[in-house]
Amino acid sequence: MRQAAGIGVFDSGVGGLTVVRALTERLPREELVYLGDTARVPYGSKSAETVARYSRMAARFLVDRGVKMVVVACNTASAFALEALRAELPLPVLGAIEPGARAAVAATRTGRIGVIGTLGTVRSGSYPRAIAALDPALHVTARACPLLVPLAEEGWLDDEVAGAIARRYLGELQAEAPDVDVLVLGCTHYPLLRPLLSRVAREVFGHDVTLVDSAEAMADVAHAELERLGLLRDGEAVGALRCFVTDDARIDEVGHRFLGRHLGEITRVDL
Amino acid sequence: MRQAAGIGVFDSGVGGLTVVRALTERLPREELVYLGDTARVPYGSKSAETVARYSRMAARFLVDRGVKMVVVACNTASAFALEALRAELPLPVLGAIEPGARAAVAATRTGRIGVIGTLGTVRSGSYPRAIAALDPALHVTARACPLLVPLAEEGWLDDEVAGAIARRYLGELQAEAPDVDVLVLGCTHYPLLRPLLSRVAREVFGHDVTLVDSAEAMADVAHAELERLGLLRDGEAVGALRCFVTDDARIDEVGHRFLGRHLGEITRVDL
Repeated sequence: MRQAAGIGVFDSGVGGLTVVRALTERLPREELVYLGDTARVPYGSKSAETVARYSRMAARFLVDRGVKMVVVACNTASAFALEALRAELPLPVLGAIEPGARAAVAATRTGRIGVIGTLGTVRSGSYPRAIAALDPALHVTARACPLLVPLAEEGWLDDEVAGAIARRYLGELQAEAPDVDVLVLGCTHYPLLRPLLSRVAREVFGHDVTLVDSAEAMADVAHAELERLGLLRDGEAVGALRCFVTDDARIDEVGHRFLGRHLGEITRVDL
Repeated sequence: MRQAAGIGVFDSGVGGLTVVRALTERLPREELVYLGDTARVPYGSKSAETVARYSRMAARFLVDRGVKMVVVACNTASAFALEALRAELPLPVLGAIEPGARAAVAATRTGRIGVIGTLGTVRSGSYPRAIAALDPALHVTARACPLLVPLAEEGWLDDEVAGAIARRYLGELQAEAPDVDVLVLGCTHYPLLRPLLSRVAREVFGHDVTLVDSAEAMADVAHAELERLGLLRDGEAVGALRCFVTDDARIDEVGHRFLGRHLGEITRVDL
């Protein structure tokens, strides 16, 4: 019963659909249940207490749908609520920070890692802590980039405005840590800006910078964890995606940009 | 009792403090009670139904504090909830749209008015409707500018990024309506960007454009309405401001930019 219901994924809004996309590619047979808390988006500018409260409600919704695993797609929710969710929920809970940190540690040569994310994620110190736990000799510099989320949602992915914003944020990061060779995209919205960020990072740092997308790292960890627990779905059928949102304004219009296809049926729910 | 409690003002977040600032200047003796729904900010990208639900909860909170008037500072809340609030609440309710529309109609010479605001405000058609009700011969062109709110909150009020964003939005408005001579700042955040928008509007349109700030128009209407109802506060004492928020992350840091001074005591509440 539980196995049939698949993997539950929640996010503050539509950004987590980049994680759904990565899960669909890595685990095409799994059923996916997505919840976007679009009535209260964003989480990234709000306090730890508020984000933890919202995250609990979102995770409970997924558990009530009978999922076998909860994936916290949102980096801010992972930063402020993962420990509490793991303590409270009777199933595996996967966050965004640790898989991203692990991928960054594997990729760096200079030992200098940059992290960009929301105000909440950066303020939490979660990435520096997770990276230090893997290798205390590494240096981490984190920079909050509040304008990147609305930029991605506006769909201005690589124009004059996007270039000016990226140069400003990455320029500030470079001034503080010029030897960074790995940049963690610590927010589900940022993969949409990947070509821009990759190009501007090379310009600003004067050398190639490897971008780490937590979404792909999370899909790998989800696969490994389900395999370890013997919970991978059998059969050849492709898994379906069911989408729930707490507010439905522009959801399909913006959502398909993050998912890479239309979302299909979307159900509005109150938490 | 009710008179002592003063004027209640609510907004989706901190932007409404520009309205508080205008009320303080116009009505310095009045006590003010401000509620910023910072746990669910922004309203501008959300559906009519969600915005109306949140607005009702916010207005009820103010009514329970014993205020004599409710000012809906948020343009999106005014667009989606003003009628319902007026029908339900036993006191005068003042919105942002009608005062702004009236000021715009008084200011235009060409009969072409531009409006910028959130997605919700623009989608609602509230400004064109309010202006048509005053003078059906006028032409109104509205443009949603989702990046201006995060820009104002980031505090990048007049740099390269701000210039690029303003040129893009106002350029699109100009292409559609080149004779616009009045531009309504249809969002509480935009007064912070006034010098930038004024300069870029002159550049883009090739002539002076009068900017209409709803906050000032609302303060005038609030004064007239309290006077008409015999509810102006007596005495010489300066009124105090009490601030309530639903989430307290960065509230004083960002809030003082909108209010022009520090907010004093701030109380966190759940709605």
